[in-house]
This record gives sequence, structure tokens and C-alpha cells, in this order.
Amino acid sequence: MTTSDARTPASTTNESVGAGKSIGWHKGYVEGSRPGLRVPVRQVHLTNGRDVTLYDTSGPYTDPTVTTDVRQGLASVRGGWIEDRGDTEEYEGRPVRPEDDGRSPASRGGLRNLDAVFPGGSRAPRRSRDGRPVTQLAYARRGEITPEMEYVAIRENVDPEVVREEIAAGRAVLPANVNHPEIEPMIIGKRFLVKVNANIGNSAVTSSIEEEVDKMAWATRWGADTVMDLSTGRNIHTTREWVLRNSPVPIGTVPLYQALEKVDGRAEELTWEIYKDTVVEQAEQGVDYMTVHAGVRLPYVPLTARRKTGIVSRGGSIMAAWCLAHHKESFLHENFEELCELLATYDVTYSLGDGLRPGSIADANDEAQFAELRTLGELNTIAKRYGVQTMIEGPGHVPMHKIKENIDLQQEICEEAPFYTLGPLTTDVAPAYDHITSGIGAAMIAWWGTAMLCYVTPKEHLGLPDRDDVKTGVITYKIAAHAADLAKGHPGAQEWDDALSDARFEFRWEDQFNLALDPDTARAFHDETLPAEPAKTAHFCSMCGPKFCSMKISRSITEQFAPDLAPSASEEEIEAGMLAKSKEFAASGGRVYLPLAD
Amino acid sequence: MTTSDARTPASTTNESVGAGKSIGWHKGYVEGSRPGLRVPVRQVHLTNGRDVTLYDTSGPYTDPTVTTDVRQGLASVRGGWIEDRGDTEEYEGRPVRPEDDGRSPASRGGLRNLDAVFPGGSRAPRRSRDGRPVTQLAYARRGEITPEMEYVAIRENVDPEVVREEIAAGRAVLPANVNHPEIEPMIIGKRFLVKVNANIGNSAVTSSIEEEVDKMAWATRWGADTVMDLSTGRNIHTTREWVLRNSPVPIGTVPLYQALEKVDGRAEELTWEIYKDTVVEQAEQGVDYMTVHAGVRLPYVPLTARRKTGIVSRGGSIMAAWCLAHHKESFLHENFEELCELLATYDVTYSLGDGLRPGSIADANDEAQFAELRTLGELNTIAKRYGVQTMIEGPGHVPMHKIKENIDLQQEICEEAPFYTLGPLTTDVAPAYDHITSGIGAAMIAWWGTAMLCYVTPKEHLGLPDRDDVKTGVITYKIAAHAADLAKGHPGAQEWDDALSDARFEFRWEDQFNLALDPDTARAFHDETLPAEPAKTAHFCSMCGPKFCSMKISRSITEQFAPDLAPSASEEEIEAGMLAKSKEFAASGGRVYLPLAD
Repeated sequence: MTTSDARTPASTTNESVGAGKSIGWHKGYVEGSRPGLRVPVRQVHLTNGRDVTLYDTSGPYTDPTVTTDVRQGLASVRGGWIEDRGDTEEYEGRPVRPEDDGRSPASRGGLRNLDAVFPGGSRAPRRSRDGRPVTQLAYARRGEITPEMEYVAIRENVDPEVVREEIAAGRAVLPANVNHPEIEPMIIGKRFLVKVNANIGNSAVTSSIEEEVDKMAWATRWGADTVMDLSTGRNIHTTREWVLRNSPVPIGTVPLYQALEKVDGRAEELTWEIYKDTVVEQAEQGVDYMTVHAGVRLPYVPLTARRKTGIVSRGGSIMAAWCLAHHKESFLHENFEELCELLATYDVTYSLGDGLRPGSIADANDEAQFAELRTLGELNTIAKRYGVQTMIEGPGHVPMHKIKENIDLQQEICEEAPFYTLGPLTTDVAPAYDHITSGIGAAMIAWWGTAMLCYVTPKEHLGLPDRDDVKTGVITYKIAAHAADLAKGHPGAQEWDDALSDARFEFRWEDQFNLALDPDTARAFHDETLPAEPAKTAHFCSMCGPKFCSMKISRSITEQFAPDLAPSASEEEIEAGMLAKSKEFAASGGRVYLPLAD
Repeated sequence: MTTSDARTPASTTNESVGAGKSIGWHKGYVEGSRPGLRVPVRQVHLTNGRDVTLYDTSGPYTDPTVTTDVRQGLASVRGGWIEDRGDTEEYEGRPVRPEDDGRSPASRGGLRNLDAVFPGGSRAPRRSRDGRPVTQLAYARRGEITPEMEYVAIRENVDPEVVREEIAAGRAVLPANVNHPEIEPMIIGKRFLVKVNANIGNSAVTSSIEEEVDKMAWATRWGADTVMDLSTGRNIHTTREWVLRNSPVPIGTVPLYQALEKVDGRAEELTWEIYKDTVVEQAEQGVDYMTVHAGVRLPYVPLTARRKTGIVSRGGSIMAAWCLAHHKESFLHENFEELCELLATYDVTYSLGDGLRPGSIADANDEAQFAELRTLGELNTIAKRYGVQTMIEGPGHVPMHKIKENIDLQQEICEEAPFYTLGPLTTDVAPAYDHITSGIGAAMIAWWGTAMLCYVTPKEHLGLPDRDDVKTGVITYKIAAHAADLAKGHPGAQEWDDALSDARFEFRWEDQFNLALDPDTARAFHDETLPAEPAKTAHFCSMCGPKFCSMKISRSITEQFAPDLAPSASEEEIEAGMLAKSKEFAASGGRVYLPLAD
């Protein structure tokens, strides 16, 4: 985050937050070194004439100069860069089959309605021309700074070489499938801003395609850096197509969910071939990262039998069921190298899943969990050998005193590969508030080095999140992420807090609202108590009323003493100045603030 | 927390959560060693026949066998114990004066309406018979285990001698004014459960007496252990009387707020005499602990002049203004020993206020803050010499990496006196979500030793909390407190989590709801997606639907392998059992779960 007095010429008024107003926040762009490399930012224009520039994840949706149509999808951002590299080619691709969207023979007849088919045209998929890796990791190792790397360097306000180094070392990933040219590139690694993922996805019970696309855009509007589509119900393929074509952020999936649909939910009927076919299907659509539960090995399954809550990961439980049914080692583990070769040809990033993560405080940090983590470390090494970008998923439910062990072990075992954790939830006793039980753990583990946090919504354990839940989950996790950025001393992180605190101390209410993570709710809460427009410029607030305001008293102290003081004034000089001022103050009647008119 | 299969005979159905149902939670009592010593508990009756007993702060309001009338106040709990000690006496007391409730001459004519006067009768105040301390600290030092100490020992499930020792050492306080016989005694100290305070209080801008009494009861309903009445507007005296007479928990105040009203808001006109008169007024009413900003010393005021947000504590800013106006040392600091003598005669507990706490991330852990803390350490030593129970208030706004220094310094400087912190807020950028920004810091600082957490509501910095905000604030802070209890390894804390996790794994939905910190919201969230009654006994939930449920798959794993295994089974035995079961499983058709009927 940077502050400046100059407005970027390309900045435009965002109509959804108050077009035509001289204050507010607006979409802006920072130009890169080549035509078309424009990095979006959120520019907050303060009433004191200054600008604050914040990271922006909301995509073209908040740019009123761009016309978007969810039926056509977003414009390509990276298409030219991918073509320019010349290492990929279009090909016919895997034909889409009815079972990609269906489940039972009865439902395979067709989609629920014609609208469900994405109308945005059919694009030929793209893959490595010669089977060699076309990954950002491969480029970084070769010393190349790709346009994607430059893009994220501008976003993060760091040198592009830092981005390249972190990716080359495997300490960061830049998830960017060659078939997802619509994304605005972003980076996940502990040297960068902590990122937040939002899960969406329909299930057999509820939800529709339209709702999921809307939730995706809504999540990015509030700050989601990536979105995982965890759909398990009907229309999986088509829902994913709509989401991908309309998403400005990387999309992650768990291919195992769809593979299981293809065998009508019979885990034991899963095969490597069905799984691989599903991975190809999703990679051709443009999925940027995939959760792969290859660490759930046969010998670990019995370790969960005496747990309080067994296996709570869906992917983990499916693989455990398969291993048990066949009494064989997991086909994901057995075919991991072939999977690496495949993902490298699309630049799909691994998110190595923690299928044995604890589902309760009682099960935290147990042998099953750490046995799997050690396997993930081995798989990380293999993936890197194949040039596949890799991050590692983490728990789960962990009490505060056991959190640090998780990140420390992961960083050691996985050679500092980015950690991507779900929470962790720090207690089990607050269903309906698990965004908070987990926001606590998320902030802590991010401070200690987790690179991306998977959000938890208030509906966790209870139901599917609606729009409001998605927003609450994202905002809660943006708080955790930013609190961690502050604690890590991320360059520029505190400028945002300082700008808001200055506005607070100076009673610039509109600036406080506009700088807030959620301006709408901040403004609404203020207006509940003091709705009149003059209250927005009042030098007090409703907590204490006009007379009791400590900020006001304190400001008068600052105004009395600080203006006279050079920044280098000694304590003695301050003391002397204070004594003089005290006499003036007493002589003038000694009123710090005015009594109420009543 | 303890679990047992037996129900306490005194337990009664709580009508507000479903009278007549065979499950739910109910008010119960644990009997002590003397007649009338009955400690309230929340008993959750599970569908599997077991009981879980939880700490209960909600007072007689949740006991349907008790008739309460806010116009008469609660029945006395401690009256007999206080009389039995024979060291206090009733006396005429300070006459109530119009200015106790008013502010300007115009408003002194009377209260807004007759109802505002508390109708519950006039009780003569009580104080030490001979001026010697009548404090729990004095009794503990003499080796006496008072009924109050026995009461909290039962509540905390510890030996009464532990309670006495912790109080005698000054590591814990049991706030219990001899003029507040209505309270159910509780203890604040790092060896005990982490406590939560909820602030209420009207202001010049908004709110009424009735609303404040309702908020107090509402806050205790959700788990507030103490309540601070921070009223600053009209009817301060009368509001406090209503709150005290109806409160089952200790009440705290900041007498400085009322003293300032008595001088029409002119800080420089405050005197020790006016302040002392206000303390006597409030002590006679029964205030259990008072925030005293005696650490805001004249030489520290200039240290705040260059801060980003100056002085944000109301009490701190009032004392700073006074010091500046007179260029004299604070009258609170100068008269601290006399104040100690006074508080000891009522057993009012000190909450030594941190008037110079940081109000922004930028100001955290600065010289002004720690200079005041060192002074609080000196005052703590003096207070203890006079037999006054004492706790120390803490920040404020502190980024995560600077939190631990606060508690460590406080514990060292203040000889392990209980720390009582506001949050701290870990970032400034999320107005409208400061319950969360601060809940993160609160959980961490409580893990590291803070004894009581002052809640922050979503309205912090924006407006006065309403009923919903009070509930959200309390629940958020109960999460922080319980997460800390878990991390500290408090005996019994994890049993609650385990009971809820067991219910979750066994799909006992009603038990999950009833064990939740907020059963109503948990139930409502579940019902939003799956409203039908059968869904409450369904072996799945709406997140994954009936087929994809990992809990269900995992339960089948446990059922297959765990029943055969002795608790002492070796890994080899488990492995062998698993192989055998795998063969059975495959032979039986190998279905882990059933496909959907569609």
C-alpha cells in the first residue's frame, strides 16, 4: 500500500460507491512496462486532498468504464503474454460428456435448462507445445521475469526480482493456468501480503449456477484473493465454466469431488483413469490450482480410528474409503509423478490437501495429521522436480497453544512452500460464530508464516453460506490477514492503519468510512445513532456525546503543545513549552471544551 | 466444567429455551457447605442421556421458579454472610442530591419521569464498623475462607484454599461491595477461567434507564461476568441504582465521569472533594469495582503530544486536561492513599485505569503507555498495603507482535495482579468489525495471562451498542476467553469442546445446538438451509449433502475398525484388524454410503 497526493490518470469513478462525489473510493490502475499491463488498485480520496492506494481484488466489476456480461465472461488479461511465450499450443481437447455435469443416468439427460450452458463461446484449450513445463516456476528458475511476475510485483510494491526469486525457490506460487487468461495475476508466499481464499460451490441440497457466479464476484468485491469452487451437485462442469470465465482471481477446485460424481458416489469404483480424465477436463477449463489428497496413505487410515471426529475432510474420507475398500495404497499417491507431468503442461498449481486434518480440538496435532504432513513434504519435493508450483494445505481445528507447531513443522518439512490453512478454529463450542473462532487462529498462523488463509463463514458446520455469510467470512479473514501483515512488519501495511487513525483523530468521518474494509457497514452503524448529515463532520461521536469526547480533549492538548515543538524537541523542551502553555490556558479561562447548549 | 450422568435435583426447566422439552439446557444449582449457598450452573441435557454442566452468569432471570421484578430488584444472596461477619454496620449515608442525576441547572429540576426513581425501597448503606478493611483480600490474608470464596471455588471447580491463596497473594480479585448483596460471587485471576466484562451506559446523545437495565441482564444472559455502567448523560445516579439492584454480576464504574458532570463538564473545576464525594455516593450504592485513572501523571501528558491519536481514554483525557489547567500533579495520584482507606471500608475493588493506553496501532507500547504502567505498579503496591483488592487495566490498540510485551511487563511490574484488557484491537482498518479485530488480540493476551477481557462491540468507534451488538460483543469475547482457557490447559475446559465435537461426529444436531455458546443462532442457521424437523436427526448436513458427507464416511471407518480394538491395541493389531475388515468390506459389496434416491 502506498499513499500519494497524485491521482493516477487512469482512475475512474466507481458508480457503485458514489459516482460524482469528490470523495469516496475509485478504481485506479498502475501502468507496467508493457502496453496492457495495468494493475488495478483501490484509490481512496480523502477530504484532506491526499490519496491512499489499496490492493484491489474486485476485477473489472468495480470499473464503471468496463462493460461486463456474465454470459460472455471477462476480457482476457494474459492471453497475449501466454501466446508471446510461444511454448503452448491450442488443441482439440477432451470432448465434454454428459456425465461431466450429471450424476445418475436419470439426470444425465440434460441440464436443468438451456441457460445453464455457458453461452460465452467455445475456446480451444491450450497446453504445453512439447510436454515440458509451462509453469511460472519453470520460468523463474530460468531467470525470466514474466509479465505475470511484473504484475504481482507492482501489486505488492516489491522488486520483480524478489517475486522471481521467491517463486524459483518454491517459497511462493503464482497460480495461473494457461487456460485462464482472464485473471489478474496474484502471488501467494510468506514474503508477500497474506492472501484470503473464499469457498463457493453448490451441493446436492441447494444452490444454483447463477448464485455461485454471483458469490464469486461478491467475494472478490470484498477482498477474496482466490476462490475455490467446491461444487458437488449437478452441473459441476457448467458451473465451473461460468465461474472461470467470469473470475478475475485464480480458481481452485478439488477434482476428486467431480470424479466421485462420475462413479455415482461409489468411492471404491474410483480409478486413476477417471481421476486423471477429470483433471484434464478441469485443466482445460482453466482451473488454476487443484487440491490433491495424495497424502492420505493406506497406513495412516487406522490412525484416525480412535479420533474424536475421525476424518473430516471430504477428500480425505473419500480416499480413505477407497484405500480401505481395496486395501491398496492410494491411487493418487501411486500416480503422483504422472499427475505432476500433467499439471506442468497447463501450469496448474498443486494445493496438496490435508485429508487427515483434525476436525476437533481433541484431534489437533495428532499422529495421523503429522504423518500425512511428512508425506506432503515428500510430494512437494517431487512436484518441484517436475516444475509444478506447489502449496501445502493445513488445519483445521487447533487450540492456540498448538498452532505454532503446525506452521513451524510445515515450513521445515516442506522447504518453506506456501502454507494454506483453513482457520484454524481455536475452539469447537461456537457454531454460528466459526468465522470468529477461526479468525483468531488464522491471524496467529498468518503472523507466523502462513501465506494464504481459507476463509470460514458463520455457516460453517451448519449450512451453506449465502451472500451475507460470504461477505462476513471474507471481511473477517481480511482482518486476520491484515493483522498478520502488520505483525510481520510488511512494508506499507501500517500506512493504511495510520491513514484511518489520522482520520479518526481528526474527526474526518467520511474518510474513516471510505478507508474501512467495509465502508457501507461502518457508515450504516454510525448513522444508526447519529443519522443527520452534520454528524458526519461533527467533532464528536455518539459514544460519549459532544462534551465527553476524549479525542476532542486530546486534540486540544496536541494543538496546544505540539505545534510549537520541533520534531527533535527534547523532553525538557516539551515540559517547558507545556508549562508556558498551561499558564496561557489558565489565563484564557481554562476551558478545554464547551458545555452543551442545553 | 464437569460432565456427569446425574442431574442436580434443583435443576429446573428454562422456559425461554423450550419448556417441557426433554432436551435443552436448564438452570441448575450446586449446593455448598451452608444453607443458601447454591451455585448456579447451566445444565445441558444431551439426547444420549448424559449431562454437561457449564458455568452460568445469567442470574435468577433464567430460573423459571424465581419471580423477578426489575422495579423491586433481585433477592439478596450475600446479605446474611456480610451480617454474620459482624465487621460492618449500617449508617445514615450520604444524602442523594439533585446534582447526582443532573448536569446543568436547567436539568436539575427533576428526572424525566417518575418511573426513573428506583421504586425498590431505600436501604441504609453499610460500611466497615471501625474503618478497618472489610475486603476479601483482608479476609484471605487472615486465612479465612469466606462464603464468597467457597462460592467461587464451586463455580471454578477448584479447592477453596486455592481461591483464598490467589486472593491473598493479590493474583486474583473477588469484587463484592458490602452494599451489593445481590451478586453471585465470581473471581478474576489468571489461575481461573478467563472472564468477560460488558460495558453499558447511556450518554448525552441516546439511551434510557430501562434500556441499560435490559442490556445488563441481556449481557449476563450470554455470559458477561461483570458489567461496567459507563453512563455519562442524565440520570446517572438513578440508572446505576436500577442496574445495581437488578444485577447478578459485579458492577464497575468510572466515578470520574459522574464527578465531571457535577462540575458541568469543566475538567479544571474538578477537585478531590467532589471526586471523593462521588466515590462515596457510588460505594454506598454498591459499585463493586471502580476504574481510577491515578496513573495519568502530569509529566506523562507531554509524552502524548506527538502521538497519532493522543489520549483516547475519556478518564485519561479528563485527568490530562486537569493536570494541564493547573500544571499540578493529578489529585487522584496525590490522594491515592486516602482513596485506598475509603475503598477498603466498602470492599470496592480498584481497577487501575490505563488513561494513556494507545488508541491506534501507531501508538502501541510507547513511552507514555509504559510510563503510566510503571506508576500503576507503584499504586498497586500501595493499594495492597491498605488491603484493597486491585486489578490493572490494559490496552487498547496493539498489533499482534507487540501484545505479549504488554502482559509480561504488567505481570512483572504489578506483581501478578490481574490484568484487565480492552481487546486489544490488532488493526485499525475495520470499523464495524472491531469485535473481531479485538477478539483476536483478546484471545492471545488471555492465553498469555490476562484475567478479564473488556468486550468490544461492532459499534466501537461508531455508535452506542444496541441489544444485538451487546450479544455479539459478549459471544465474541466468550469465544476469546474459552479459546484462552483451552490454550492455558484450564482443567475441564476441553470437556465442553469434546462434548460438542462428539455430538457433531454423531450427528446429534440438537445436542450441538444446545451445547453452543449461542444455541438460538446455531439452530437458526441450520434451519435456513434444512428447515424440516427430520433434518435435525439426519446423518448429514447441507454443506455436502447426504452422499458426500465426510463425517459419515469417517464414522463408517471408525465403526468398522474401532469397535474391535481394545484401547491398548498396537498399531500392528490395528493394521491386522483393518486388513481383515477390508476383506469383509469388499466381500459385502464395498459400499461406504448409499447413493441418493434420485
